[in-house]
Amino acid sequence: MAEVKRRLRMGMVGGGQGAFIGGVHRIAARIDDEVELIAGCFSRDPANSAKTGAELRLDPDRVYDTYGEMAKREAERSLGDRIDFVSIVTPNSSHAAVATAFLEAGVHVVCDKPMTFSVGEAEELVKLVEKTGLVFVLSHNYTGNAVVREARERFQKGEMGQLRKVLVEYVQDFLAYPHEKEGMKQAVWRVDPKQAGLGGALGDVGTHSANLLEYVTCERITELCADTSTFLPDRTLDEDANILIRLSGGGKGVISVSQIATGEENALRLRAYAADGAVVWDQENPNYLGYYRFDKPRQTITRAAKYMSKSSGAVTRVPTGHPEGYLEAFATIYRDTVSLIRSHTDGNPVPPRDYLVPSVYDGLRGMQFVTAAVESAAKGSVWVKLP
Amino acid sequence: MAEVKRRLRMGMVGGGQGAFIGGVHRIAARIDDEVELIAGCFSRDPANSAKTGAELRLDPDRVYDTYGEMAKREAERSLGDRIDFVSIVTPNSSHAAVATAFLEAGVHVVCDKPMTFSVGEAEELVKLVEKTGLVFVLSHNYTGNAVVREARERFQKGEMGQLRKVLVEYVQDFLAYPHEKEGMKQAVWRVDPKQAGLGGALGDVGTHSANLLEYVTCERITELCADTSTFLPDRTLDEDANILIRLSGGGKGVISVSQIATGEENALRLRAYAADGAVVWDQENPNYLGYYRFDKPRQTITRAAKYMSKSSGAVTRVPTGHPEGYLEAFATIYRDTVSLIRSHTDGNPVPPRDYLVPSVYDGLRGMQFVTAAVESAAKGSVWVKLP
Amino acid sequence: MAEVKRRLRMGMVGGGQGAFIGGVHRIAARIDDEVELIAGCFSRDPANSAKTGAELRLDPDRVYDTYGEMAKREAERSLGDRIDFVSIVTPNSSHAAVATAFLEAGVHVVCDKPMTFSVGEAEELVKLVEKTGLVFVLSHNYTGNAVVREARERFQKGEMGQLRKVLVEYVQDFLAYPHEKEGMKQAVWRVDPKQAGLGGALGDVGTHSANLLEYVTCERITELCADTSTFLPDRTLDEDANILIRLSGGGKGVISVSQIATGEENALRLRAYAADGAVVWDQENPNYLGYYRFDKPRQTITRAAKYMSKSSGAVTRVPTGHPEGYLEAFATIYRDTVSLIRSHTDGNPVPPRDYLVPSVYDGLRGMQFVTAAVESAAKGSVWVKLP
Amino acid sequence: MAEVKRRLRMGMVGGGQGAFIGGVHRIAARIDDEVELIAGCFSRDPANSAKTGAELRLDPDRVYDTYGEMAKREAERSLGDRIDFVSIVTPNSSHAAVATAFLEAGVHVVCDKPMTFSVGEAEELVKLVEKTGLVFVLSHNYTGNAVVREARERFQKGEMGQLRKVLVEYVQDFLAYPHEKEGMKQAVWRVDPKQAGLGGALGDVGTHSANLLEYVTCERITELCADTSTFLPDRTLDEDANILIRLSGGGKGVISVSQIATGEENALRLRAYAADGAVVWDQENPNYLGYYRFDKPRQTITRAAKYMSKSSGAVTRVPTGHPEGYLEAFATIYRDTVSLIRSHTDGNPVPPRDYLVPSVYDGLRGMQFVTAAVESAAKGSVWVKLP
Repeated sequence: MAEVKRRLRMGMVGGGQGAFIGGVHRIAARIDDEVELIAGCFSRDPANSAKTGAELRLDPDRVYDTYGEMAKREAERSLGDRIDFVSIVTPNSSHAAVATAFLEAGVHVVCDKPMTFSVGEAEELVKLVEKTGLVFVLSHNYTGNAVVREARERFQKGEMGQLRKVLVEYVQDFLAYPHEKEGMKQAVWRVDPKQAGLGGALGDVGTHSANLLEYVTCERITELCADTSTFLPDRTLDEDANILIRLSGGGKGVISVSQIATGEENALRLRAYAADGAVVWDQENPNYLGYYRFDKPRQTITRAAKYMSKSSGAVTRVPTGHPEGYLEAFATIYRDTVSLIRSHTDGNPVPPRDYLVPSVYDGLRGMQFVTAAVESAAKGSVWVKLP
Repeated sequence: MAEVKRRLRMGMVGGGQGAFIGGVHRIAARIDDEVELIAGCFSRDPANSAKTGAELRLDPDRVYDTYGEMAKREAERSLGDRIDFVSIVTPNSSHAAVATAFLEAGVHVVCDKPMTFSVGEAEELVKLVEKTGLVFVLSHNYTGNAVVREARERFQKGEMGQLRKVLVEYVQDFLAYPHEKEGMKQAVWRVDPKQAGLGGALGDVGTHSANLLEYVTCERITELCADTSTFLPDRTLDEDANILIRLSGGGKGVISVSQIATGEENALRLRAYAADGAVVWDQENPNYLGYYRFDKPRQTITRAAKYMSKSSGAVTRVPTGHPEGYLEAFATIYRDTVSLIRSHTDGNPVPPRDYLVPSVYDGLRGMQFVTAAVESAAKGSVWVKLP
Repeated sequence: MAEVKRRLRMGMVGGGQGAFIGGVHRIAARIDDEVELIAGCFSRDPANSAKTGAELRLDPDRVYDTYGEMAKREAERSLGDRIDFVSIVTPNSSHAAVATAFLEAGVHVVCDKPMTFSVGEAEELVKLVEKTGLVFVLSHNYTGNAVVREARERFQKGEMGQLRKVLVEYVQDFLAYPHEKEGMKQAVWRVDPKQAGLGGALGDVGTHSANLLEYVTCERITELCADTSTFLPDRTLDEDANILIRLSGGGKGVISVSQIATGEENALRLRAYAADGAVVWDQENPNYLGYYRFDKPRQTITRAAKYMSKSSGAVTRVPTGHPEGYLEAFATIYRDTVSLIRSHTDGNPVPPRDYLVPSVYDGLRGMQFVTAAVESAAKGSVWVKLP
Repeated sequence: MAEVKRRLRMGMVGGGQGAFIGGVHRIAARIDDEVELIAGCFSRDPANSAKTGAELRLDPDRVYDTYGEMAKREAERSLGDRIDFVSIVTPNSSHAAVATAFLEAGVHVVCDKPMTFSVGEAEELVKLVEKTGLVFVLSHNYTGNAVVREARERFQKGEMGQLRKVLVEYVQDFLAYPHEKEGMKQAVWRVDPKQAGLGGALGDVGTHSANLLEYVTCERITELCADTSTFLPDRTLDEDANILIRLSGGGKGVISVSQIATGEENALRLRAYAADGAVVWDQENPNYLGYYRFDKPRQTITRAAKYMSKSSGAVTRVPTGHPEGYLEAFATIYRDTVSLIRSHTDGNPVPPRDYLVPSVYDGLRGMQFVTAAVESAAKGSVWVKLP
């Protein structure tokens, strides 16, 4: 019988009352029962943090007023007591500082996307992760979807032929209404350049789009030309962007993102057309992958089907036809993180380039993407090269 | 600030290695973080039970060789220590005995469906639940889906007009292959009348179908005529059934179930046509409800949309467009169970007829449905009345 | 260069002003440019007939007051002038009489469905067709759909294995409103037993369902048990029926039809599950055929794709992705009729059992189906055998 | 009783053996029975033309060796005998010359798209149409779809609010295989710049995309930035293009076209998001229009439903649920052309700007679009303004 390992101890920064993504991370971390939340600093407002900690039934000693204090005091605890990793779910502007504090304290990190406020911060973070050798996972949750991984495998294995065209869209109407004027927390920081960073929709859903594209096709965006828009009064960040892209293998494509696309909910859709086949995926019906071959009947590949590849099949929890959704894909990010941390603890750390989940390098890519898109738009929608 | 209540302590009977539904119940119970699993008897095989308990990181003292011992010894513990409820996930044949043992020990029960092996057992269980006044919830998980509840509300509120036609189907191909001959545990007991009971597909997916129909439409099946089939060699239980039904309000319909419908995965679909409107739901894409009105554009109602009714909207966890699936609906069964047990503890027990989740009475209905269908088929597919 | 043959000359009985299906037949006959309409008796009302004839730009000499006169006078014309075939699009009650008149006059027949008013009439018609050897085609138009034919080929070729379960539904809400009370012609005769016959929805859409089932699966319905309903006031014919069926090869199934299924338009859907594969077709999105194999990715077969079988591929007019619809399938009935008549003229008549389109025998099957269903329902929904 | 008018007499240039679109035009012209084909010059090869004419059962006197001869000789015939209009279905390079010949001969024109070989030719054609006052209709067939017209009405009526984002795609895989190397006629001319013009996919499907966008939204593309690709060996024209667009009302969008998108058939899809609502249409399932309002259930608008606007409802032939497809939308182009010609004949010509079908001005727009896109791409994908 295989040794049963203890659950990993998680801390959280952000995710207090009125937040959205913190609660998602907590459920996701819980689903596979390999993680327990034991500490947190849930808000810049200590009262909110304390209240959230109480609601989460945490020991008040492990609920902190500042993340700095949390990093320091957790690090002072014994190995058998301190948190194994921290989950960072604050607005974008503080990701880098929080991550830095914990990495320097020797704590592994799961960080929400986009990774940082700027490319400069991202580059610093890359260096720090490289220096510490700690696990750093970026929660582009869609990479945890089983059929997304199946699509990636098909490209990795080389069965698709040259990639020619990619269409990615991520359209919502979350910001078609001025929620920020009524104080909705999730809107307030997203439309505030001081908290969100250079990009609005670009940072929030654009980074998911670019990440999914590179994740599935195993190619890189080399160049882009972005046209961004802002429609609602008093907003300055982009609400919408249409972006031409060129890819490392000679293919081309489009990324179109929006948070003002009336009637759209959370429509992340990827289509990748290669010489010999194509894949089609829609996050809103995420258990199915369209798989096309030239002049053959179209196929629908179903999550948890027996014919799936081994690694994709491994990340499902319930049988085919029993839909998994957003939370389950997110849970896979945590499951994989646990596995990476355990390997690290066992003395066999996995190089970040080999992660099945996004690493600090993907976070840097995301910031480069946003920065290039913003630069392109600022210059009148001209072509800008990515590093 | 509202008082934060402790998590409820759950025990489990069944769900050892090789089982399927036990793991599902454990995840579902965990998702909303109101339940902790602390005890169990996971298999009739003590070694399997012990191993499962260890994997689940349970205190070995709380892992039992028999459910009887578990009921007895848990009941002997102090109120602050013993399990609050037990989750029963064994094959059908033992549900009644296990439930009885725990109810008699004063422990609330969540029981997998179908509720019992026979109508007689179900009737005894009804009496026992009535006598003890304890919470008994039957895990017809689809009733936990938010848009299913929305559909039910539309019928409850009377906005649909007279129900005229209902088409329910639950078709799978799980048993189109003789998995039991290769020892797959989930198949072995399902095709064994001694463990599964009178019905094969009827018990396994037929009871879900009948329950969903009655749950959504708020009507009762009064009469049925069933034609059942068994195709694979050496099987005796029905693999497939087509059933004409008549409803309490004068409407009619069909329930068609199968576990040999090649290419189908877990296709539970409900369509209910009333005089003024209709609802359409498909479990495999469960975040959407088709809603029709005569001579108007068809509507699609989306889980977590703002226009949903209050009670349906309350059972979602993530925003619209972020798909919830099978596990989340299941988690709602546990969330509601926790709420029912807390009300009971607080001295305000909810009458089972008012549960939003299936109660012991729904379990009895299920057994009456299976029994009537089997009787109908045995007599040459004649009409049989339900109580 | 192949000889170019003249267009066939068509006459029409029925299809005057206020009718629906007559206009459909005229377009369908025209699409492939092998037919010209030159004569007609379009209504029992001579003024309507004359007016319709004028609108259709017919020679008034070829527009008749009665079908009897038409049959007689057309037969008196020279071979190079008279109609080659007649298209009968009257209410059901007169099909047999009209068909008889023309067959006896030596004129080939296309007849709308259901074929006759009664089984007796149908049997007489079979005899007459056998005796005259003339072409008689029944316009179950859905058999003209290319992917329906592809599905049939898969069964004919034996690649599906034993047929186990069939689900056919044909649901509409056309009669959910009492249109007949406002004089709508198509509703008036459909709810009148003197014109429609024994069956309401059974005759109108039930015969299509039974025909499609037998056409695709190459099996016969041997037995049925029908439960019919009538909901709107002052109606006597069935508006809705749910029917258990048993098939010649040991499979079972359901046919469910309705004309009061609120929100449904013209939803004819077939699913046929066999041991090795399954087919799924939906008339409302008719260019696609779902094709399943056990434990393989689902396939979607597209009209006009290169991988289609030769005979199915032959009945499409525009490339894949350019949707054909209701009229094009209907046109194929006429195209095939033209071909059958030409073979007859050339002295190589095709035996009706070999038609790719429904023949007089299928018409008889339809009447047997309706009659058995009505008998079953009248006796309290008992099992009735089909001949 | 309204006067019954004679069928219009049509001539055709192009559409000989091996062609595709000519046959489509012939069926489309026939469907509503208001047109008869009586003359043609079907190929630059007189033998092909003669053979095609014979197959179409035309009087050999009306089958011509050259279109010039046809225009001349038809014009010499009496008004009661000569063709009323000509349908031009040749490769793009000859559209202008052929149209000019017939317009100068006083013959109305239906012309396949794209309208001409160059903007210069298009401008000349505009002048000629203006000078002659004759009817000139460009066969962007998708504008004949009923729900496309419904979408347009919603924009025209102003119920959508400011248009913010448009996503149009038209993706095929028709040229993912080098058919031209095997002599397939439709491929040969499409990849030959001398016959197709400046644009490959841009001309063939790009013009449809731009036209549909402007048609539905009632706005104009003011500026674009195009990135084009050619992947297969020995080809020079674009096979694929991704184009950023800006619109007259301040909205932005993307047009993405491809003829090498493996697995796609004829996927023209339009999504237009405005401040108060959005429309979604997919040519491959063309009987449905998605209609969204902010924070309301999504609606599906169905062709031929009673709630459609009057003008959209008028262009359907069969009831809702009976799918119309590609040919029926195309037939509406002809139906509307007939109506325009009749108005012209009656002395009440409709100004081209008021056509419901595309006019010569739309043809000019198409050429401006292709030319701007090609210029943009040639300059490294920079922004180019449209006139």
